[in-house]
Amino acid sequence: MSTDLLARLSFNQMTADPWPLDRAVRECAAHNVPSIGVWRHKLDTADATHAAALIHNAGLRVSSLCRGGWFSAPTPAERRERIADNRLAIEQAVALDTKVLVIVTGPAHGQSLDDARATVLDGLREILPDAERAGITLGIEPLHPMYAAERSVVVTLRQANDMADALASTAAGIVIDAFHVWWDPEVYAQIERACGRIAGFHVSDWPVPLPGILMGRSMMGDGVIELRRLRHAVEAAGYTGPIEVEIFNDEIWSNADGTLLPLIRRRFVEHV
Amino acid sequence: MSTDLLARLSFNQMTADPWPLDRAVRECAAHNVPSIGVWRHKLDTADATHAAALIHNAGLRVSSLCRGGWFSAPTPAERRERIADNRLAIEQAVALDTKVLVIVTGPAHGQSLDDARATVLDGLREILPDAERAGITLGIEPLHPMYAAERSVVVTLRQANDMADALASTAAGIVIDAFHVWWDPEVYAQIERACGRIAGFHVSDWPVPLPGILMGRSMMGDGVIELRRLRHAVEAAGYTGPIEVEIFNDEIWSNADGTLLPLIRRRFVEHV
Repeated sequence: MSTDLLARLSFNQMTADPWPLDRAVRECAAHNVPSIGVWRHKLDTADATHAAALIHNAGLRVSSLCRGGWFSAPTPAERRERIADNRLAIEQAVALDTKVLVIVTGPAHGQSLDDARATVLDGLREILPDAERAGITLGIEPLHPMYAAERSVVVTLRQANDMADALASTAAGIVIDAFHVWWDPEVYAQIERACGRIAGFHVSDWPVPLPGILMGRSMMGDGVIELRRLRHAVEAAGYTGPIEVEIFNDEIWSNADGTLLPLIRRRFVEHV
Repeated sequence: MSTDLLARLSFNQMTADPWPLDRAVRECAAHNVPSIGVWRHKLDTADATHAAALIHNAGLRVSSLCRGGWFSAPTPAERRERIADNRLAIEQAVALDTKVLVIVTGPAHGQSLDDARATVLDGLREILPDAERAGITLGIEPLHPMYAAERSVVVTLRQANDMADALASTAAGIVIDAFHVWWDPEVYAQIERACGRIAGFHVSDWPVPLPGILMGRSMMGDGVIELRRLRHAVEAAGYTGPIEVEIFNDEIWSNADGTLLPLIRRRFVEHV
């Protein structure tokens, strides 16, 4: 059981932000972590081929590429740039041989929330044919409502499900991050509703007290999230793909060394 | 119009935490703020009669008393103490001649979220007859989901509406705080659904970036919340009672002086 679970472990590279990609890849390979979640701003080249070679030569798979989205912008010209950037992200996902582009929808940027949410849906509609042609799933990731003003106007699984319904495409998926959704009274109902479109599952934990807004996440087991219950719900909804460990935490970043991946493996088996 | 609106202004005393009650009352009276929102830990005596006299002699009304709730506790004995404390809060509300006891439901305290939410509903059921007899509305206040682990397992208006439906009593109401609910894609639908049971409306603002989790709120106009739209929605749902300005902000607390109430009046008319 724990062996099967470990075969699904993926290390999201933002968990050790100070590491360059080659270090992250080396640590994963050294500690039998089979997959890595890649962030675009950490790719060495825009066409992603160098990163892809580095990762695949080490025997790793890419569980997802983060991030597309961020559709809202102050001017039409900037909004068109965002669409172009999303198309580039889809190409990079193809180069990395991953099936999932994580979509963080972005803030309102001066629009009303309603208008910004409409802009997000318009943006997704515009890039959807590109994703379909490329065989990439756009994984809409609702962020915690505390990021509504600065990072994501999409803040609940219900909302992400509504958007995926509206898009009506196999390329419109949902990424479920435990840190972002655990508090929601509807979380289990909406995970069930997401059956067939779950494109990723991310884990970390919510410590008490939360030390900060952006950097507050903790290692699994150091918080209050019912991670195992969430995993079982996600599995019951048909998702058996990679599970990414994605932790934004200053202390983990400062101390990231050869003991990090073994700790993640242990906590992953114990708590997820 | 602005005159009518100012007649509904209430100063929640936590907006100037360093002020003792008599100072807060004096400032309200000096600046034509007709109501005050009172916190129990700031009452001078447990039976609230001294505070009531101070407030009423200054010509002010009490818009609400905060807080009851906090139902979940590690042991059955402590849970019984919480019920007794809620009954005392209802008596204090009567003494203060307010109609509303604000209910902050409290954290899970080691229970699962589901169990803690059930404990909250059980607690409300237990004190409901006391509230009905006393003519006090229990104003269930959903807090922002970033407080789910530390302050409130009730985090959305949908959830508060569901609870009020389950309680099925005129003494079961809802308090809507703009800071806690503005991000919710369902906020306007759930305000409409709350028609007839809205027991209070609180305002402040959400600055970008948010400076902190507990103390992050700002003065109205210094953030991104669509306060006027929310007020109109609350009014369309039949609520025309007091509107409390409740701001937890270190800078406002440190600098609270005779200019605070005039600033609040101005921002209230401009932005709410």
